[in-house]
Amino acid sequence: MRNVTDLVVDGEALEAHIQTLGAIGVGGAGSLFRPVYSRAWSEAQSQICAWMEEAGLATRVDAAGNLIGRLNGRADGPAVVTGSHIDTVRDGGKYDGALGVLAGIAAVAALRAAGLTSDRPIEVIALCEEEASRFTSAFWGSRAIFGLIGKDEPEAITDHDGVSVRQAMAAVGLDADQLPRARRTDIAAFLELHIEQGRILEAERCELGIVEAITGLRQLAVDLTGHQDHAGTTPMDLRSDAVAGAAEAILALEDLARHLGRPAVATVGRVSALPGGTNVIAGHVSFTVDLRHSDPAVLETLISEAEHRIRSIAHTRRLGIDIQVLGDHRPTPLSVEVAAAIDRAAQAERVKAKRMVSGAGHDSQIFARSVPTGMIFTPSRDGVSHNPLEFTPIEQIVPCVRVLARALTDLASS
Amino acid sequence: MRNVTDLVVDGEALEAHIQTLGAIGVGGAGSLFRPVYSRAWSEAQSQICAWMEEAGLATRVDAAGNLIGRLNGRADGPAVVTGSHIDTVRDGGKYDGALGVLAGIAAVAALRAAGLTSDRPIEVIALCEEEASRFTSAFWGSRAIFGLIGKDEPEAITDHDGVSVRQAMAAVGLDADQLPRARRTDIAAFLELHIEQGRILEAERCELGIVEAITGLRQLAVDLTGHQDHAGTTPMDLRSDAVAGAAEAILALEDLARHLGRPAVATVGRVSALPGGTNVIAGHVSFTVDLRHSDPAVLETLISEAEHRIRSIAHTRRLGIDIQVLGDHRPTPLSVEVAAAIDRAAQAERVKAKRMVSGAGHDSQIFARSVPTGMIFTPSRDGVSHNPLEFTPIEQIVPCVRVLARALTDLASS
Repeated sequence: MRNVTDLVVDGEALEAHIQTLGAIGVGGAGSLFRPVYSRAWSEAQSQICAWMEEAGLATRVDAAGNLIGRLNGRADGPAVVTGSHIDTVRDGGKYDGALGVLAGIAAVAALRAAGLTSDRPIEVIALCEEEASRFTSAFWGSRAIFGLIGKDEPEAITDHDGVSVRQAMAAVGLDADQLPRARRTDIAAFLELHIEQGRILEAERCELGIVEAITGLRQLAVDLTGHQDHAGTTPMDLRSDAVAGAAEAILALEDLARHLGRPAVATVGRVSALPGGTNVIAGHVSFTVDLRHSDPAVLETLISEAEHRIRSIAHTRRLGIDIQVLGDHRPTPLSVEVAAAIDRAAQAERVKAKRMVSGAGHDSQIFARSVPTGMIFTPSRDGVSHNPLEFTPIEQIVPCVRVLARALTDLASS
Repeated sequence: MRNVTDLVVDGEALEAHIQTLGAIGVGGAGSLFRPVYSRAWSEAQSQICAWMEEAGLATRVDAAGNLIGRLNGRADGPAVVTGSHIDTVRDGGKYDGALGVLAGIAAVAALRAAGLTSDRPIEVIALCEEEASRFTSAFWGSRAIFGLIGKDEPEAITDHDGVSVRQAMAAVGLDADQLPRARRTDIAAFLELHIEQGRILEAERCELGIVEAITGLRQLAVDLTGHQDHAGTTPMDLRSDAVAGAAEAILALEDLARHLGRPAVATVGRVSALPGGTNVIAGHVSFTVDLRHSDPAVLETLISEAEHRIRSIAHTRRLGIDIQVLGDHRPTPLSVEVAAAIDRAAQAERVKAKRMVSGAGHDSQIFARSVPTGMIFTPSRDGVSHNPLEFTPIEQIVPCVRVLARALTDLASS
C-alpha cells in the first residue's frame, strides 16, 4: 500500500466502456433491457471478457455464467474479488451493476499501469444475475458461488414466456446440472462498487459512500374494508371510509419513519380504492407498505409500531383489516475491516467519503454471509436508478475507482 | 283534507308491484338493468300503464316517453303531479325511481278507495329517464317537460353501441322531432317519493324524510406530481412523495367537511399512484374529490377551503399540482309550501318525519326550477342504493305512501 502513490485511472476508456456496454441490450424503442442468459447478455459477457483480457486478466466463466478475470498475486491463496452484476431491469440504466464490473477492470488496469502487484490474487467478477428481471431468481450469480441455489430452482423458475432457467442456461451453452461446480471457498474478501441509487451523497456533497450495512426490509400488503356508500347521501359521521383510513395510515407511517430518523424509511407506493367511483365512498382499499432499517432491533420496532398504528386506525374507524407479509429480509452488516480499508484508501486519495447504509439490496448481502464484504457507493445524479436517466459523471466515478484500486491492493496485501 | 280520516294503503298490492316491476329488466346474470327506450323499459311502461288504469287513472304517453296517469279533480286547472323515473342504473335495485311511481299509484288508489276527490287533478308520472345509465342524458324525462333538451341532443348523444337517442326513441315508436310537444305549463306542484339512498333516517329511527333542498356539488380531479425515487435509498427527509401528499389532502378534506357539519360532505372515492411499485416512491398520484352542500354560500366556502388546503399541502411538500373541475351543480332549494304540506300530512298520520337535505340528484331538481316541488324520502336499509341489495321493507313504505296521499290531496285542494 505504501507504494501506491500515483494511481491513474483512465477515465476516457472507462467512459467508453460504460457507453459501449450500455448500448448492448437496447431494443427497438431505445430502452435497455439485458436479462440473464439472453442474447444481449451473452454479447455483454463477451465484450467484458475482451476488456478483461486487454487489462491483463486471465478469464474464465463458471458453471452459473459468472465471468471471472483474475490477476495473480505474488503468492497464491484466496482472492480479493470485486465486481457486480451485468443483468439489468427492464428499461434500465447503464450504471446499475455494470459500473461495478467496469470499475473493477479499470482499477486493475490502473494498478498494472502503476506497476503494482499484490500479495494475493485480485479478481474482477461479472455476476450473471441480480435483478430478478427475467426470472424470480434474484442474486442467481452470487447464490451459485455460495451453493445457495435450490435443487429445484432451475426447473421450477420460468420466465414470462414459460422458459425455465435450465432451458435459458442451455441456450447460452450452460448446463444447470453443473451449477454446484460454481461454488467457491477461495474468496478472501468481496468489495462491490455500485451507484448509490439515492440522493444522500449528492445532497451532502460527498464523493463516495462507505457502506456499513445493507438494510433489512419488511413489505406488507394491507387491505382495509369499510362500508361502500353514496358520497352524497352519507353524512361524514356515518361513514366507514376505507380511503380516509388508508390516508391516516399512510401519514402515520411517514411520521413514524421520520421520528425514528435515518436510515428508517416507510413507503406506500401502491394504493387502490374500490369501486373507485367519484361519487362512491370506497368500501375497500389496498395498499403496500415497505419498511426498512439496517439495525435489526430498530427494524423490529419499526415493523411492530407500523402494524400497531395501522391496526389502531382501522379499529378507531371501524374498518376491517388484513395484513399480509410480501417480503422480509434481515439487515446485513458488512465487514468492519473492509470498510476500514475503504476509509484508508479514501483518505489517501483525498476523496470525501461518508459512512452510510444501503437502502437497496445488492449481491454483497449474499457474499457478506460467508466472506468479509464491503461496498463503495458512487453518487447517483438526482438519485435516479432503474431508469434510462440513471447517470454518474465520469469525473465523479474516477475518484471512486482510485479508492477501489487502493482498497483492493490493501486487502490483497498480507 | 279534513275528510281524509281512514286512508288505507294496500301494502300487499304495492309489494307485489315492486317485485313484478323489479323483475322486468333482469338479465342472464340475475342483474337488473332497465335503460331508457330499451325493450325492458317498454315492458315496464306497459305494465305500469296497466296498473295505472286499474287504479282508475286515465293514461297517456308524452312525446318523450313519459307515462302519465291522471285522476281528474272536481275542477279543472293545473295538476298536482307525483312520480319518479323508471329507468335504472346497471346492476341496479328495485326501489330507486320505481318506488316513486308505484307509491304514486298506490296513493291514488288509497284516495279512491276512501272515496276522496280533490279540487284539482292529481297525476302520477313515470318519467322515462333520470340515471344517465344508457346515454349521458340525465333527467331526460323531466327536462323534456320543461323544454330543457337541446336541439342537437337526440342526434349527438349515443349509447355504447353508437345508437343515438333519436334512433333509440324510434325503436320504441317515439319521434325525437316531437320532443318539444312534451313541454308543459299546467303543473301546479310536483311531489316525488324516493328512497333516501343514505342511512340518516335509519340511524335516527325516523320514518320519513322531508327534503328541503337538493345538494349542490363540485367534483374535482386532482393530480399531484412529486419525485419518483427508490423506496430503499431515499431518506424520508429527501422525498417528494405524491402518495403522502395525497394522504394529507384526503385527511384535510375529511376534517374540513366534519367541521362544517351536516350536510357538508367531502369524498375521495378514486385514487391511483404511479408507477405503483411496492419499492418505489410514487412520483404521481391522481384522486377525485366530491364536495357537497345544500347551502350555496357554505358550498362556496367548502369548495374554496378545500382547494386552498390541497394547494397548501402541495406547496409545503414541494409537489406539483393540477386541479380540474369534473362536475358542478348549484344547490336546489325545494318549496317551503310543499314541505309544509308533507309536514302536516306526516303529523296527521303520526309518522315521525325529519327535515333533511338530499345528497343525491333527483328529477325534483329539474321540476323545482319551474314549479313548487317537494320530496318524501323513505328509509333505505343500510343506506344501500344503485345495488341489487337496495331494500325498504313494505312496513316502512306504507306509512310514507299514506303521507304522500294526504299531501297530494292537500296540495290539490284550493
